[in-house]
Amino acid sequence: MSPDLITFGETMGLLLAQPGLPLEHADGFRRSVAGAESNTAVGMARLGHSVGWFGRVGDDPFGHAALRMMRGEGVDVSRAVVDDTRPTGLLVRDAHAQRPIEVCYYRSGSAGSSLRPADVDEQWIASARSLHFTGITAALSEDARAASEKAAHVAREAGVPVSVDPNIRRKLADGPRWRELLRPLTGYADLVLTGLDEAREINGHTDVRDTAAWFLERGAGLVVLKLGSEGAWATDGTEEWFQRAAEVPIVDPVGAGDAFNAGFLSARLRGLPVPEALAEGVVVAGNVVQVAGDMDGLPNSRMLELTRDSEQVTTR
Amino acid sequence: MSPDLITFGETMGLLLAQPGLPLEHADGFRRSVAGAESNTAVGMARLGHSVGWFGRVGDDPFGHAALRMMRGEGVDVSRAVVDDTRPTGLLVRDAHAQRPIEVCYYRSGSAGSSLRPADVDEQWIASARSLHFTGITAALSEDARAASEKAAHVAREAGVPVSVDPNIRRKLADGPRWRELLRPLTGYADLVLTGLDEAREINGHTDVRDTAAWFLERGAGLVVLKLGSEGAWATDGTEEWFQRAAEVPIVDPVGAGDAFNAGFLSARLRGLPVPEALAEGVVVAGNVVQVAGDMDGLPNSRMLELTRDSEQVTTR
Amino acid sequence: MSPDLITFGETMGLLLAQPGLPLEHADGFRRSVAGAESNTAVGMARLGHSVGWFGRVGDDPFGHAALRMMRGEGVDVSRAVVDDTRPTGLLVRDAHAQRPIEVCYYRSGSAGSSLRPADVDEQWIASARSLHFTGITAALSEDARAASEKAAHVAREAGVPVSVDPNIRRKLADGPRWRELLRPLTGYADLVLTGLDEAREINGHTDVRDTAAWFLERGAGLVVLKLGSEGAWATDGTEEWFQRAAEVPIVDPVGAGDAFNAGFLSARLRGLPVPEALAEGVVVAGNVVQVAGDMDGLPNSRMLELTRDSEQVTTR
Amino acid sequence: MSPDLITFGETMGLLLAQPGLPLEHADGFRRSVAGAESNTAVGMARLGHSVGWFGRVGDDPFGHAALRMMRGEGVDVSRAVVDDTRPTGLLVRDAHAQRPIEVCYYRSGSAGSSLRPADVDEQWIASARSLHFTGITAALSEDARAASEKAAHVAREAGVPVSVDPNIRRKLADGPRWRELLRPLTGYADLVLTGLDEAREINGHTDVRDTAAWFLERGAGLVVLKLGSEGAWATDGTEEWFQRAAEVPIVDPVGAGDAFNAGFLSARLRGLPVPEALAEGVVVAGNVVQVAGDMDGLPNSRMLELTRDSEQVTTR
Amino acid sequence: MSPDLITFGETMGLLLAQPGLPLEHADGFRRSVAGAESNTAVGMARLGHSVGWFGRVGDDPFGHAALRMMRGEGVDVSRAVVDDTRPTGLLVRDAHAQRPIEVCYYRSGSAGSSLRPADVDEQWIASARSLHFTGITAALSEDARAASEKAAHVAREAGVPVSVDPNIRRKLADGPRWRELLRPLTGYADLVLTGLDEAREINGHTDVRDTAAWFLERGAGLVVLKLGSEGAWATDGTEEWFQRAAEVPIVDPVGAGDAFNAGFLSARLRGLPVPEALAEGVVVAGNVVQVAGDMDGLPNSRMLELTRDSEQVTTR
Amino acid sequence: MSPDLITFGETMGLLLAQPGLPLEHADGFRRSVAGAESNTAVGMARLGHSVGWFGRVGDDPFGHAALRMMRGEGVDVSRAVVDDTRPTGLLVRDAHAQRPIEVCYYRSGSAGSSLRPADVDEQWIASARSLHFTGITAALSEDARAASEKAAHVAREAGVPVSVDPNIRRKLADGPRWRELLRPLTGYADLVLTGLDEAREINGHTDVRDTAAWFLERGAGLVVLKLGSEGAWATDGTEEWFQRAAEVPIVDPVGAGDAFNAGFLSARLRGLPVPEALAEGVVVAGNVVQVAGDMDGLPNSRMLELTRDSEQVTTR
Repeated sequence: MSPDLITFGETMGLLLAQPGLPLEHADGFRRSVAGAESNTAVGMARLGHSVGWFGRVGDDPFGHAALRMMRGEGVDVSRAVVDDTRPTGLLVRDAHAQRPIEVCYYRSGSAGSSLRPADVDEQWIASARSLHFTGITAALSEDARAASEKAAHVAREAGVPVSVDPNIRRKLADGPRWRELLRPLTGYADLVLTGLDEAREINGHTDVRDTAAWFLERGAGLVVLKLGSEGAWATDGTEEWFQRAAEVPIVDPVGAGDAFNAGFLSARLRGLPVPEALAEGVVVAGNVVQVAGDMDGLPNSRMLELTRDSEQVTTR
Repeated sequence: MSPDLITFGETMGLLLAQPGLPLEHADGFRRSVAGAESNTAVGMARLGHSVGWFGRVGDDPFGHAALRMMRGEGVDVSRAVVDDTRPTGLLVRDAHAQRPIEVCYYRSGSAGSSLRPADVDEQWIASARSLHFTGITAALSEDARAASEKAAHVAREAGVPVSVDPNIRRKLADGPRWRELLRPLTGYADLVLTGLDEAREINGHTDVRDTAAWFLERGAGLVVLKLGSEGAWATDGTEEWFQRAAEVPIVDPVGAGDAFNAGFLSARLRGLPVPEALAEGVVVAGNVVQVAGDMDGLPNSRMLELTRDSEQVTTR
Repeated sequence: MSPDLITFGETMGLLLAQPGLPLEHADGFRRSVAGAESNTAVGMARLGHSVGWFGRVGDDPFGHAALRMMRGEGVDVSRAVVDDTRPTGLLVRDAHAQRPIEVCYYRSGSAGSSLRPADVDEQWIASARSLHFTGITAALSEDARAASEKAAHVAREAGVPVSVDPNIRRKLADGPRWRELLRPLTGYADLVLTGLDEAREINGHTDVRDTAAWFLERGAGLVVLKLGSEGAWATDGTEEWFQRAAEVPIVDPVGAGDAFNAGFLSARLRGLPVPEALAEGVVVAGNVVQVAGDMDGLPNSRMLELTRDSEQVTTR
Repeated sequence: MSPDLITFGETMGLLLAQPGLPLEHADGFRRSVAGAESNTAVGMARLGHSVGWFGRVGDDPFGHAALRMMRGEGVDVSRAVVDDTRPTGLLVRDAHAQRPIEVCYYRSGSAGSSLRPADVDEQWIASARSLHFTGITAALSEDARAASEKAAHVAREAGVPVSVDPNIRRKLADGPRWRELLRPLTGYADLVLTGLDEAREINGHTDVRDTAAWFLERGAGLVVLKLGSEGAWATDGTEEWFQRAAEVPIVDPVGAGDAFNAGFLSARLRGLPVPEALAEGVVVAGNVVQVAGDMDGLPNSRMLELTRDSEQVTTR
Repeated sequence: MSPDLITFGETMGLLLAQPGLPLEHADGFRRSVAGAESNTAVGMARLGHSVGWFGRVGDDPFGHAALRMMRGEGVDVSRAVVDDTRPTGLLVRDAHAQRPIEVCYYRSGSAGSSLRPADVDEQWIASARSLHFTGITAALSEDARAASEKAAHVAREAGVPVSVDPNIRRKLADGPRWRELLRPLTGYADLVLTGLDEAREINGHTDVRDTAAWFLERGAGLVVLKLGSEGAWATDGTEEWFQRAAEVPIVDPVGAGDAFNAGFLSARLRGLPVPEALAEGVVVAGNVVQVAGDMDGLPNSRMLELTRDSEQVTTR
Repeated sequence: MSPDLITFGETMGLLLAQPGLPLEHADGFRRSVAGAESNTAVGMARLGHSVGWFGRVGDDPFGHAALRMMRGEGVDVSRAVVDDTRPTGLLVRDAHAQRPIEVCYYRSGSAGSSLRPADVDEQWIASARSLHFTGITAALSEDARAASEKAAHVAREAGVPVSVDPNIRRKLADGPRWRELLRPLTGYADLVLTGLDEAREINGHTDVRDTAAWFLERGAGLVVLKLGSEGAWATDGTEEWFQRAAEVPIVDPVGAGDAFNAGFLSARLRGLPVPEALAEGVVVAGNVVQVAGDMDGLPNSRMLELTRDSEQVTTR
């Protein structure tokens, strides 16, 4: 079966401090899974899409648990590699509505960062309805960057639309390095989904229209700017759309961007116009931030509909 | 001793997901008890009233635990029946401030739904200061409907004031069925406590004054319309009163209506005028929605007074 | 791919009281999944086998969670049916090393009990290396019994070896009914895995050799008698083997039999002789009883090997 | 209704560290209720007896919760006094199978220790089938000692059989003081239930027969010596009986003696002979030590029967 | 090393109900430490200051745990006394964003309340950069009052600036008694940090300027009035400053005042002007109220900076 | 003050799965600290000794928490280095009485493994009453090995007795490498504390007397062989002693060896003869294995005495 979407990257074990307690002082932790692309993959699978994810995990409890979680959600992980020479990355963090969130990363030398071009199944990607990735992967290692580029190249050659979210993490690389990595990669994007700050790292612009124009000139057909608690704005160079964020009580803001991507991409694959896709992105993100964990609050279709009906969100 | 209030219905075990986690993904559950009328009974007992509850539970851990809880709170359950041929109903749900709440009901064929006219102790009801019930009971089974009618009839004959809350649950019956069940039963009511949507299912009106007039024409002396986060409105056909809802951080909105009933009925039994009773209803409901669980946040008199003093609520 | 084993039956949500607290007084519950056949299916999947399971679950959080769990473990649930007209069964219980275990079943009218012959994918079964089922399914409903028989018949016709575990539960049917149900069904069995008490319900024998002889006469090639804390005994009519149980600290004995089946069947499919298969069954069961939950302690291959190496178990 | 048994004493809030963690380092606590006599009262109520308890609690959350718990279990607490001038006692401890148990008592100046003769309802006691108390109460204060004596005196005058358990706690008084307190009080006892060490504090004997003889000479008709993990021994001066302790995995030994008393007294009230009463005492105690908490493991009649059937205990 | 600040008082064990559940009904508790001055001491230690605390704790798990906690945070407790004749005080409470908080104190006769002048190390205090205490200590016992006075006197003689927070608790003394205790003690203060209501208990004024003037006349150089959710106001008699409170989601307001003191005092010791010190006080308090517990949310310097950067707070 | 003992090595954050659940499937984790030498350091500090520990931790929540824990226990960590260029190591594991324990190590490139000779405070070591280290440190890095050697050398020069525990972990190095590392280092030991298997890696002997003789020949004055659940054996070449292990219910065997070392070294420092020191080692280890976590069950002096009194252990 031709997957609606293929994505790839690093997936890690997540140990989440009891919500509201600072990491340094928390005693109890709940286990989950984290990774920008796997978050989006699970988000789309819950909304009923056939989704494939690939990447490398270690031959250890966190690696097996991550694959089991995704497989359980219906994500096709048959191309994932269990690398018995490296550990699965691990992320330990706290969760707060508003206090700064503290994160300990244990991902250096991880299996996930050793993704390589040989892991890219060209035929599978060419068969998909869309390809999605984030800039994080390229920053993990030269191999992983090359794998990202190969996947993007295969998709373009096969006419598979590509979406890219820069998803810049300062812990992984500095500004100039991010620019060097992401300028070529976003060049493959038919759709760019990005925060405004992240976009500025790449193109230097601070204005939404300027930054969108920069990506549109380089080949994107649509640019979506995620504006956090304000909402999301999009343009195709001709029209512009804006959607207010959902007004919900925030428990843990982490994962909102990946969730937005899932909602937006899902809506587009279902043929909805941009403003409705923005609204779906905002509703999916609004579900996620009400639940501690990167992906634990991702809604299924029925929950999405219930939330939509509760008029939390109005498209305009 | 003559009880201040007698009520009856189905009481179930409740297993409540850790607040904030969606039911489908929650791992940890806390146990409590649920049931519209037992919520109100406990609410009034905590406020110092002598209260009786009757109904059927199974001869199993959930049934015994429900009776133990009510007995512990001082509710007289001496007329409750332990039915060893049917299980106690069970309800598993999640709790969110704002996400739609997901509920799994295991109440078909339950002991509670087999309440019957023979379970109604006529002398006891005739001795009480008031009788309260909800429309849920009538929708459980023909036997339970007949028991509701018998109790209402006994009360009217004995001059015991009757209050009714339609409390329509779409999972139990459809609109026409609710109308058929509740038109006769609300006819017994001296006091109707209802949501606006529920009232419309019964009488088709969408305006507060129209809907109140409909109940007043059929014999009610007072109609209270619960308007959710806006507050509550009441009329006796002559005067009108309105009370804003308490402004509190919501943890779990379930049980707010039953709690309002407890506060309102308690105030009336203590001889307070309608506007003060509305205020008490709103304060009790405001306590309950701050705590996960249908009845876990019901305040005692001291807590009620403390909350009132904190000026969370102003009567007007 | 031809599955190593196909099995079917009812799978339910499980809410497990905090180990050591009696069900009637426990406040905290952990969620898992229960079902004799799904336990065995997951057990074999963890040991590296390709396994298929089918059955019906409701279109509700417990049903989706059960499928997600099995799918995550690598069990092929593509033939499972989501029945949106019935709820998924639910089981609430406590867990003790030695106190009697208390269980509340909410499975009457469940989706799982409405399994029917049309749910049996004949081609799939005919393609498998083995078929396994328990007597529980036949006791759920006439439809479910017919489905069991159809699956057994298809397997026999296709030359697929059949294993049957009577797994008699007194809550589901009385003795004569069990006899009526299981005499024909065990007639399909190439391999009978049973407790001694359960076997007596079927054939009236109390001696291990007599009871084994009864099954062998009716066509079984091998009979395994599970003797609880003593161990397990087997015969093919010619030879006899015995294996002591593992000496481990018990946390929750539930699921030991299903785990034994997984270990034994896995070993046989890997071509091991009967005594080694008995030893593997005993090791897998010994892992499960050290962990609260029906299946939470099922080991993977690596864990099985580690346990075996720790000389907890000696084959003789 | 004439109660089967009346008892009295101090009941305290209990905060129990997560089993297995030392008190000084534990982070999580579960709340329960503790008090030798209320343990026995709840034990007997769960076994189906009508039981009354009296004593003083503070007008605070721990006091109300203790009464609610007992009332919920069906214990008649209508004679208990809520003393709004003193706090309810509190006990914080850890629970281990075998490590020494660490306890922090907060009971000095507690409401419970201010029990006084005026709290003793003479008519109620005279109407009971039996009176039970422990030596702890007398050690709390002179008022409480006088109340114990008054209750004992009333019972003797009314021909109500009295049972006494010295239950010596070194934290409350020293050896000579215990002797002074308990010699007169045990003089009222028809039945003495005691540990051997405690008896020695009172009468100086170290041999079971000598110590029993001492109590029999002073008027007891039956003496039961609780021998911990060995079991229990009894004599009426003519015959002697012994019962081995149940062989169960211990989680928390606290409360075993109170539980034994409940089982023994219940059996005697049901007319069972001494050896069967010893056996019931041992089974009830065996249930309690498998569960963390003083009284959380007290079985109901059905659980008692199940345990008895499991042949954990053999009468001889 | 000369400590930046020395403080003293009573420190108690804290058992905190699971946030959101009323104390009377909560089952689970988390352990922490409470005490106005130790809260401030830990707050300052986390911000990098050398801090000393002295007082008395019992020779019991709560006393040792309190010292271990403070020592762990780097607070110098070498002058603290372990008093093996009295227990450490204990405090059991619930935590709510807005419901009234219920507290059970077990501090009568505690080790902490027996602080005495002999416990005051004069040389150590004379060597410090500042001394801080609250009015609570003086209300514990005459000995503790005398110790407070001695410490204040020593500091004044040595030219060590003194800050006092009245911190009136109605449970410890009535209004006239507070006035009698605090008028002399606040006379030692170079800096008064107080709530408006507390100040009124002392000087009868209800206006911020009047109340400040009263303290300034009696020798204070600076008066800070903590105005709860509105913010904080300060004057030195010449200038006035105001700082809005941080807008954060409140989980547990307890400890906000002690945290404010830590932030304010720390900023002053780092040489910051009053308005910036007010801002730091507000940020530290804003961190604490987002976390359940009196001191669990106290930020370290890095966290303080991150919060400040998030523009939660604007100095004006 | 001259410390009784100085030790050094790597200390890591520990996240421990809820006891009894396999790591791959556990959802809840509790946080503690792990590290062979810090375990022994805390063990001795709890028994009343002045102890110093040094090593490197990262400038992150796990590093600060580890130092805070040790400082809280009274261990002098003033020579520890906070290395802001590397993360603190992390260890995630499960805890079982008997199932194999699964561990995920995140320590490659950790701050702890970058310990170097410059971190060794020569004067401080020369001032101590004893120096203790394990072979783990030498296997972390060449720098760490050199630091170990330097510390050992300084101690020998200053006449400070040295104890060494090889503590071989197969995950860190292979057999030949361990031999190469440990032959020179154990050459500094006045006291060797080792398991039999570990000793064989170093000297090839399998017999207790042979292996002891090998160490004695190379300069050790006393050799203690830890024999797990059997107990411990020691010789000085002249006499031999044996001590049975404590018979306790095991919850988590990890940390037993480090705990034994603390008990043994403490007893020797208090001047006790070898057989009593063996008994103390066994009692301390017996306390630790009853509690989940590497060091959470380490007893203080009072607990040690209580355990000793309970006759769990008999010296012979």
